[in-house]
Amino acid sequence: MSQSSTIPTYVVGVDYGTLSGRAVVVRVHDGAELGSAVHEYRHGVMDTVLAATGAPLPPEWALQVPADYVEVLRQAVPAAVRAAGVDPAAVVGIGTDFTACTMVPVVADGTPLNELPGLADRPHAYVKLWRHHAAQAQADRINELAARRGERWLPRYGGLISSEWEFAKGLQLLEEDPELYHRMDHWVEAADWIVWQLTGSYVRNACSAGYKGILQDGQYPDRDFLAALNPDFAGFAEEKVDHPVGALGAAAGTLSAEAAAWTGLPAGIAVAVGNVDAHVCAPAARATDPGQMVAIMGTSTCHVMSSDTLREVPGMCGVVDGGIIDGLYGYEAGQSGVGDIFGWFTAHFVPGALREEAAARGLSVHELLTEQASREPVGAHGLLALDWQSGNRSVLVDHELSGLLVGLTLATRPHEVYRALLEATAFGTRTIVETFAASGIPVTEFVAAGGLIKNAFLMQIYADVLGMPISVIGSDQGPALGSAIHAAVAAGAYPDVRTAAGAMGRLEHAAYTPDPARTEAYSALYAEYTALHDHFGRGGNDVMRRLKALRRHARSTQEVSA
Amino acid sequence: MSQSSTIPTYVVGVDYGTLSGRAVVVRVHDGAELGSAVHEYRHGVMDTVLAATGAPLPPEWALQVPADYVEVLRQAVPAAVRAAGVDPAAVVGIGTDFTACTMVPVVADGTPLNELPGLADRPHAYVKLWRHHAAQAQADRINELAARRGERWLPRYGGLISSEWEFAKGLQLLEEDPELYHRMDHWVEAADWIVWQLTGSYVRNACSAGYKGILQDGQYPDRDFLAALNPDFAGFAEEKVDHPVGALGAAAGTLSAEAAAWTGLPAGIAVAVGNVDAHVCAPAARATDPGQMVAIMGTSTCHVMSSDTLREVPGMCGVVDGGIIDGLYGYEAGQSGVGDIFGWFTAHFVPGALREEAAARGLSVHELLTEQASREPVGAHGLLALDWQSGNRSVLVDHELSGLLVGLTLATRPHEVYRALLEATAFGTRTIVETFAASGIPVTEFVAAGGLIKNAFLMQIYADVLGMPISVIGSDQGPALGSAIHAAVAAGAYPDVRTAAGAMGRLEHAAYTPDPARTEAYSALYAEYTALHDHFGRGGNDVMRRLKALRRHARSTQEVSA
Repeated sequence: MSQSSTIPTYVVGVDYGTLSGRAVVVRVHDGAELGSAVHEYRHGVMDTVLAATGAPLPPEWALQVPADYVEVLRQAVPAAVRAAGVDPAAVVGIGTDFTACTMVPVVADGTPLNELPGLADRPHAYVKLWRHHAAQAQADRINELAARRGERWLPRYGGLISSEWEFAKGLQLLEEDPELYHRMDHWVEAADWIVWQLTGSYVRNACSAGYKGILQDGQYPDRDFLAALNPDFAGFAEEKVDHPVGALGAAAGTLSAEAAAWTGLPAGIAVAVGNVDAHVCAPAARATDPGQMVAIMGTSTCHVMSSDTLREVPGMCGVVDGGIIDGLYGYEAGQSGVGDIFGWFTAHFVPGALREEAAARGLSVHELLTEQASREPVGAHGLLALDWQSGNRSVLVDHELSGLLVGLTLATRPHEVYRALLEATAFGTRTIVETFAASGIPVTEFVAAGGLIKNAFLMQIYADVLGMPISVIGSDQGPALGSAIHAAVAAGAYPDVRTAAGAMGRLEHAAYTPDPARTEAYSALYAEYTALHDHFGRGGNDVMRRLKALRRHARSTQEVSA
Repeated sequence: MSQSSTIPTYVVGVDYGTLSGRAVVVRVHDGAELGSAVHEYRHGVMDTVLAATGAPLPPEWALQVPADYVEVLRQAVPAAVRAAGVDPAAVVGIGTDFTACTMVPVVADGTPLNELPGLADRPHAYVKLWRHHAAQAQADRINELAARRGERWLPRYGGLISSEWEFAKGLQLLEEDPELYHRMDHWVEAADWIVWQLTGSYVRNACSAGYKGILQDGQYPDRDFLAALNPDFAGFAEEKVDHPVGALGAAAGTLSAEAAAWTGLPAGIAVAVGNVDAHVCAPAARATDPGQMVAIMGTSTCHVMSSDTLREVPGMCGVVDGGIIDGLYGYEAGQSGVGDIFGWFTAHFVPGALREEAAARGLSVHELLTEQASREPVGAHGLLALDWQSGNRSVLVDHELSGLLVGLTLATRPHEVYRALLEATAFGTRTIVETFAASGIPVTEFVAAGGLIKNAFLMQIYADVLGMPISVIGSDQGPALGSAIHAAVAAGAYPDVRTAAGAMGRLEHAAYTPDPARTEAYSALYAEYTALHDHFGRGGNDVMRRLKALRRHARSTQEVSA
């Protein structure tokens, strides 16, 4: 199969999100998206009760049911093929991407523990979704011990392992349900589990293994370290997570007869090695070269960028060899809160009159606030915010931080606060971009992807704040398109992901260009942002940390006295 | 006339507010409030256009029409007497209080300039209301020059003369309409102008003269100082404002035949020396002893307290010999924003759903937010605010400061921010109380007055934050009652204001007592407040000042380009 083939061929990309999976049918030779379909998970996210029993779950838990993922293959894939109006026989490959770090506990044949007889009532038998945050205590111990021992891998993650990742969640499983831990043969990324369902064999993907599984230079954290966390955890890496790793773009195998029956696709077509939803956007946006930073901007923002240089960038989420593009170092950074901050403010701090005006004019509240905010020049609101309502990942790596707003007067109105929040996230992005540059990994092109790209005013703020053009992905199904690109490479249609991305990815270069006057005005505000950022984020005043401690104390006291 | 008189006698107190005047008829022997009436000023506040011509006024202007004040005497006083059902012949005196510093430019016989032929179209011919803030440039020059010259009177005002006061407003008049300035024979406090209308003669009251007129130790700022501001201003003090001063509680004169006809009261009864609305509350709350601090809590808070000691308290608004109670030093401090901060947040940052819930339950939004906020223990919101939405008067004396909010998370809800704002004003009050104590003027009793005393939760927060009981005035017409008390003293019914206040004032001692556990919890938050207060208010980071400068610059640029 080659690009010059006269009969068009197709690939299917499947993007597994938090609440649903989306399949997209893409033409191999030009990346045209011909049809798509979405299937919502029957059980959604179980974060209050376990569906099987109705038993309540503790705070911070978030579980899913693996069978829901398979249903996406049975429903969304054939629906997408029908919607595309293509002959399933012309589909030559399928690729997938997943939320991460989302973990499935399975026995040797890949069966999830929750499907074993008698285990449906055990919360730990289920998938721990990326936003299961109940392993924070384990993560804290991992970080403290790693810092104390000076583990070589810690700086590769900006100095902090997340409670969302494989080791913290695995340790929680061991310590809270040791029987299940011992019955579990593999602790599998959902990204790899779904590929296992498609092919019948387990291949670990380089992206998850590196970013979430602490695989660095071919090694996991060693037995001594793990035993120091918990003697029974000593064998975790080698027994539960270690497994042959497939490079991104490679084929993990071929479509099994069973999966062919589910999907209606031909058995034997290529199935790409699994991937992570954010990282797979890079080829979708043709951002496969060193220095092209892709920001996937949604409720939070994930920044991914490849480089031929290995550096330890302060506060990054991780650097992984071949983590985004095989053969390059993949860097990841993140902002914990972006769109969810805008959504929070809009949901809870906007008066009814504005909501009614928006409704009357057929606008969303976001659109109305944006319209009002966009009329004013830079700095006219007199406000400055720190965008830490969900803490700060990059570059401070501190989830005890909180949001701040300064400059409030009796004349301050909601659209002004809204704009200050938009700007704060842009300042947060600039902080990340500058930190990468200062570490010798300059950002040469900033590419925006994700749901927030539809807000042109926000995009322009980013261009003005960064003082550099903003390029924008040309697809609103970036992850699925990225997965389709990997499928095309796995199917041999292109020699590598970079070539495939050039043919199939979509990018509008410099869609937004900075206005010099606004950039200068924003630089003054950015200097103020940086001063507050460092004062409250680097120890000048740890009031945020103390307020959170007071909050926890007050609430626990209340519970006791209630 | 004595307290033991068998036939009851009455006095009338008239309180001149920003939008209306209120008359109250009070029984002399026990202070019972028997009837009241309100009359709204026909022209209200002219802050956008001049009523006589419809011509626009510049920003920050706020004018009034003197004839509107006289109308209160003609309407509200007789209506109050009728409402009280007393015989006007039994009224033995009348007392008044006024907003301050509200200034009337008049010719020798007391006629306001705006009533002279041909001057009705001249904005500077009208009353400059207390909240006319267009003399800031003049105030800045006065302060800068006074600080540079080390003027002895400057520390008596906490280091800052307000743009609202006599000298700044007078200098603006000179510099913007010199012809009118030269035609003006007296620059008169409205508090004294209304007494002039009642008696036919001009007596300056000790309170306004001291707090607003920079009369200290019998002297005004000297000619050299004034000439350095503007050569034509050299004679301002001696020519325009200097005038014999009457002590508080003394009679300024007797009711003229003309004023008797207006009011329906007997000609010849005592008319008390004028007073200021905040300060006159002290006797109404029986707070005439050294160490009793009365906080008049409304849109802003004014703190007044007498002492037998003269000290220079940092950031106070002023200390005046006989400024509140003749024979004692009267101290004044202030918080620029209190109730207006709560009102601003409630008006602009509370979603429709909460407003509808309040309406459905017959509550105000304030009441609903208070109810929700009161359910949580101290610190449970994890928030901390600086209450500087209107700048800070005491103790930082900096109107370039602005509001700050820290601790925001995606879980933060409006009632939590609302509570943080309530608490912030209490922390601001504690800062004032502690500053007075540190200056050797301890507060022995904290007395709350004004519209906010009806919020019991707020009062309890103040008790808990201050760690001391809160006493509450027993009248919701404090200023008018205080004026009536002064009238009784002027009429000779009592030997002095202190004695009259004991008989006629109303105070509930220790209406709210602090809870030790909450006081301890608030102390931790107060320590955080103080750290932020000092960091942002005392030069650690002047970001607030710079944000306001950027705001002004952005808005002026916009106007130019528009």
